[in-house]
Amino acid sequence: MNVATATTRRLESYVKGQWVAGSGDGALLTDAGTGEPVAVISSSGLDFAGALAYGREKGGPALRALSFHERALMLKSIALMLNGERDAFYAESYRTGATKTDSMIDIDGGIGTFFVYSSKGRRELPNTRVLLDGDVEPLSKDNSFSAQHIMTPLQGIAIHINAFNFPCWGMLEKLAPTLLAGMPAIVKPASQTAYLTELMVRKIVDSGILPDGALQLVSGSAGDMLDHVTDQDVVTFTGSASTGRMLRTHKAIVGNSTRFSMEADSLNSCVLGADAEPGTPEFDLFVKEVAREMTAKAGQKCTAIRRAFVPRGQVDAVIEALRARLSKTAVGLPADEGTRMGALASQDQREEVRARIADLAADGEIVAGDPDNPVLASGNPEAGAFLNPVLLHCADPHGAENVHDVEAFGPVATVMPYDDAEEAVALTQKGKGSLAASVFTNDPAFAEQVVIGMAPFHGRILIGNRDSAKSSTGHGSPMPGLVHGGPGRAGGGEELGGIRGVKHFMQRTAIQGTPRLLAPVTGRWMEGADAGDTSVHPFRKSLADLQIGDQVVTKPREVTLADIEHFADFTGDTFYAHMDDDAAKANPFFDGRVAHGYLIVSFAAGLFVDPAPGPVLANYGVDNMRFMTPVYPGDELKVRLTAKEINPRATADHGEVRWDAQVTNQDADVVAQYDVLTMVAKQWPLPAEG
Amino acid sequence: MNVATATTRRLESYVKGQWVAGSGDGALLTDAGTGEPVAVISSSGLDFAGALAYGREKGGPALRALSFHERALMLKSIALMLNGERDAFYAESYRTGATKTDSMIDIDGGIGTFFVYSSKGRRELPNTRVLLDGDVEPLSKDNSFSAQHIMTPLQGIAIHINAFNFPCWGMLEKLAPTLLAGMPAIVKPASQTAYLTELMVRKIVDSGILPDGALQLVSGSAGDMLDHVTDQDVVTFTGSASTGRMLRTHKAIVGNSTRFSMEADSLNSCVLGADAEPGTPEFDLFVKEVAREMTAKAGQKCTAIRRAFVPRGQVDAVIEALRARLSKTAVGLPADEGTRMGALASQDQREEVRARIADLAADGEIVAGDPDNPVLASGNPEAGAFLNPVLLHCADPHGAENVHDVEAFGPVATVMPYDDAEEAVALTQKGKGSLAASVFTNDPAFAEQVVIGMAPFHGRILIGNRDSAKSSTGHGSPMPGLVHGGPGRAGGGEELGGIRGVKHFMQRTAIQGTPRLLAPVTGRWMEGADAGDTSVHPFRKSLADLQIGDQVVTKPREVTLADIEHFADFTGDTFYAHMDDDAAKANPFFDGRVAHGYLIVSFAAGLFVDPAPGPVLANYGVDNMRFMTPVYPGDELKVRLTAKEINPRATADHGEVRWDAQVTNQDADVVAQYDVLTMVAKQWPLPAEG
Repeated sequence: MNVATATTRRLESYVKGQWVAGSGDGALLTDAGTGEPVAVISSSGLDFAGALAYGREKGGPALRALSFHERALMLKSIALMLNGERDAFYAESYRTGATKTDSMIDIDGGIGTFFVYSSKGRRELPNTRVLLDGDVEPLSKDNSFSAQHIMTPLQGIAIHINAFNFPCWGMLEKLAPTLLAGMPAIVKPASQTAYLTELMVRKIVDSGILPDGALQLVSGSAGDMLDHVTDQDVVTFTGSASTGRMLRTHKAIVGNSTRFSMEADSLNSCVLGADAEPGTPEFDLFVKEVAREMTAKAGQKCTAIRRAFVPRGQVDAVIEALRARLSKTAVGLPADEGTRMGALASQDQREEVRARIADLAADGEIVAGDPDNPVLASGNPEAGAFLNPVLLHCADPHGAENVHDVEAFGPVATVMPYDDAEEAVALTQKGKGSLAASVFTNDPAFAEQVVIGMAPFHGRILIGNRDSAKSSTGHGSPMPGLVHGGPGRAGGGEELGGIRGVKHFMQRTAIQGTPRLLAPVTGRWMEGADAGDTSVHPFRKSLADLQIGDQVVTKPREVTLADIEHFADFTGDTFYAHMDDDAAKANPFFDGRVAHGYLIVSFAAGLFVDPAPGPVLANYGVDNMRFMTPVYPGDELKVRLTAKEINPRATADHGEVRWDAQVTNQDADVVAQYDVLTMVAKQWPLPAEG
Repeated sequence: MNVATATTRRLESYVKGQWVAGSGDGALLTDAGTGEPVAVISSSGLDFAGALAYGREKGGPALRALSFHERALMLKSIALMLNGERDAFYAESYRTGATKTDSMIDIDGGIGTFFVYSSKGRRELPNTRVLLDGDVEPLSKDNSFSAQHIMTPLQGIAIHINAFNFPCWGMLEKLAPTLLAGMPAIVKPASQTAYLTELMVRKIVDSGILPDGALQLVSGSAGDMLDHVTDQDVVTFTGSASTGRMLRTHKAIVGNSTRFSMEADSLNSCVLGADAEPGTPEFDLFVKEVAREMTAKAGQKCTAIRRAFVPRGQVDAVIEALRARLSKTAVGLPADEGTRMGALASQDQREEVRARIADLAADGEIVAGDPDNPVLASGNPEAGAFLNPVLLHCADPHGAENVHDVEAFGPVATVMPYDDAEEAVALTQKGKGSLAASVFTNDPAFAEQVVIGMAPFHGRILIGNRDSAKSSTGHGSPMPGLVHGGPGRAGGGEELGGIRGVKHFMQRTAIQGTPRLLAPVTGRWMEGADAGDTSVHPFRKSLADLQIGDQVVTKPREVTLADIEHFADFTGDTFYAHMDDDAAKANPFFDGRVAHGYLIVSFAAGLFVDPAPGPVLANYGVDNMRFMTPVYPGDELKVRLTAKEINPRATADHGEVRWDAQVTNQDADVVAQYDVLTMVAKQWPLPAEG
């Protein structure tokens, strides 16, 4: 049965704008649950150098011509389209051995990542092509020389080499930040499950949402692709540490200092709190989580719990509870309703896991599950790559080597004892760097000690307790807004993390110069740059006319003691520094009664606001407000208000304008400095509704 | 003369808390200007594995026990101490071939970096041990599950392998962020100039400012040091690309995913603007900068200008101006007053540069300087490694290979023509990634096009023009607040960049959990966490008593139409949305007249302030203020104020307290959300002055 027939589907690659099949016999991919042929895969004969060049020359410029918000909207369109095709993806996903629940993580989780990046892109990034990074660094006292870091998309191509376990999410979680950054990508899924990735790429390509060259696909081996990488490319790899080491030392990657990010399996830990005795919600949550991590995706997750550390006194209770829970896990054909755990990806994978279980058993004993004799609810144990969950117990985790060093990439975990929090931390660290860890406790002190102790060795740590029992996303789930990746054995890479992940595909550059020349480069007005138009109040300008630098300088206004007393009386803010001269003088910051900060900014608004109806629609906030010089009765304030940043929204009739507000006194001392945030119409008068 | 004598100084290494000399004959280091013996160097027999372990086990815990501000103050103490020893460093620096001006870059520049990091550490970092990274990521709608990224110091050791050209700055610019992060270091300077580094380390060690194990020194080769690195160590390298490639692929570094950062020489560009004709200030500034970059440190700077791109019509004028300027550069003994350029680091270095000049000459012609026949103002051309500045001209930069690929690490640059801005950008990109570039122009449009075009290929870009002629820090000077490092050929590393550089020695970890347990881990109160003490108004508590979570919830206050009109009248802020019902309704955000944002926060202060003299000394600012729901006449507001972050200053009687302020209306909608920043006394009553 395990041979290709004339009707077996032949996977194609999408390169240089065309779907092409590789030459030669190719490799046969089989259904994980039944062993039946699914597809044949080959990338022989592909023009890899040409594909990379095509992405750089066609896809890159097209993506870079779009703004962050335009790219974010593109992600949303793709996510909506993929959502409509979920049934097709699920049907194909069963063949990988994944149950419906497993498929949700892969398919819906991947699509969800696109939605999150689309939303973050529009909320957290400006609607521009250049991203500013950090604040202005003044480099001269007279503001004639300053600096600003900017980020621009790399001008190469991102090569994503992915693992077999998440054919959809594995692609989409890397693609979202790549495309949002403005960089084209070429995806090379692991062959074993590439048919699902290929299907998804077909849907994306057919939708026509992405510009030509923005996305290419290699079905099959990477051939000589990496020989052609340059200094502007990025290579990411998810998979085994041994392959990762080979790629990391690839001649072209090393020779060009090509950015390389790796995410490898790791021996992730879960710690049961000293407080979490049997009968507590945390004990039950811990047992549930360890069992779930062992069985979800048949344990084939980089983040799965491999090492469970338990207070010495609770080892027996934990093993008993886990054994009971795991024995109820129905293993069988992934599409069957009653199945709780599907098959491993392949027979080879099952043999590999069995060998690693034998390594682990050398450090202890198997306490649940027989790796050699699958007990199935459905399916043929010879044809499908089935394996029941296997739990081990290692009584001496300090003497053991394999348990901290050998990963069985399947439904396998080991329970180990610890005596105190410090020891638990030390044992987790023996994994030499992991993607994820968790601790189940309801004790803040225990949580603090264990989390801070584990942090330098982990990319993500989950605290589980009763309060988050329902809302927790779980130990094993990378979240788009949180970094994914860990130090050491886990590969030392970092993915996702919200906008952090976008920056992985951009170059940070410090730009120095005089503010007048820096401002057009950065798109942000800064102190020392020229004022633009001062002839018209800038509140009278819609986004069609407003330019950064447009400015109004107000007339002065005196702040009297009567004003201060009146404001205190009106607002109720009778803080002693405003009301009591002696008490104010005793304060280390003041020489006597001072005006309220809120009075200063209220008067400032009274000075700079142009009141008549106009394109300025609302003041929606204020940022970085600092009161820098006390204001005493008799001081005269004036305001300089300058358009600093302008962000028209892609999908509304208005946009955000950030104004630099500087309040000075009669001695030209800066009294207050802040950014005023407003919504401004794109046109004025507003277009008639309709 | 070039042999060690009985009195020749023998350099020592500082490892495991002791100064030790390596065994064997060692290598002889000679004076660059005179060829006289300076010192003998050897690291043979050192216990490298022991040194790394010592740093990790002694230095790491001691540094991690300090807060960021305590570490920052330590940097300041060291900088002040080193400033007092400058004469000794200058005396030794002349022997490296450096003139007094060159030495300033190295010695004062290095000390200055410590001062800047000390200051940034206290201004931009909290006075804690755990650094928060980014905002809270809510992961549930009911705030029962959230996440916060934190950064903790890596628990290994940082190994800094440095270049010969900046024996002081090269060490200090890496050490400042390392120590501020809380990580110990071992410094391995290049042998050629290690005697100056050794002297400086002696002063630091003798000062007793650093805890034991925080700083070690290897004088001589790195031996088997890198064989012992782990997943928690960091290796940085500054030097040649070929050595860098070797280190990057070192088995232990690859096997442990040890963090590795490389900063290599690059073919840095300088572009003369199309507008900058002879007679303009920018033309003169360009010529001055190219000449300075060629001659400072005898051109032995990673950031030095190697390629000068000039509008085709200005090539002759530029060459003539540079030739005139370079011919006046007196080359001679570094310590001589009349010397403008000293010697290369060694005779070997001079031979190497001569060979590379020959490579470059294959692409064009030498137009100034004879590499084979030094013309000196002082010194012996045979004994010292002298070389006059050599300028080349390459008429066809598209056809040429070497000029974009071969670096002569000495006083050497090539002038090349370009026709338009796009071509200038394309030519700079042929360097395949550089540390620094500059463009001299007074035209904002030209600056924008060239800077944005070059940005993905560069770590730092300087715009030079008349306005910054006096204040500019120049093309070649890395600044502590700006990133240093570039993609591709430049090594792909990143150093400095202010607090960014500190994070290179820390692990970023996403922490997920219920806010009640997350808050103690992160040290910051967050939405969803329990309130602390609500029995006493928190304004009555000094830092001795205040805890995060301490909270006051105020009584409600109605906002009347009369209040709005009165506020408008009093402040002068008669913006139409507050005054004119029809105009407000026409606005897409409002259903009628609304209260001023500043009125809301003024009333809020009136509600939450506890007015009597007490430990709260001043409100110095407000952050992230957002108005989220319009407030209409008749709405009732109340405020919840919660202590969010507490930062006692290390060197004052007070500290910063950040309060979470949330204003809600009668429907419990959040009307405004912001952070109130206050100064609070450590004790109350204030201690008597004295």
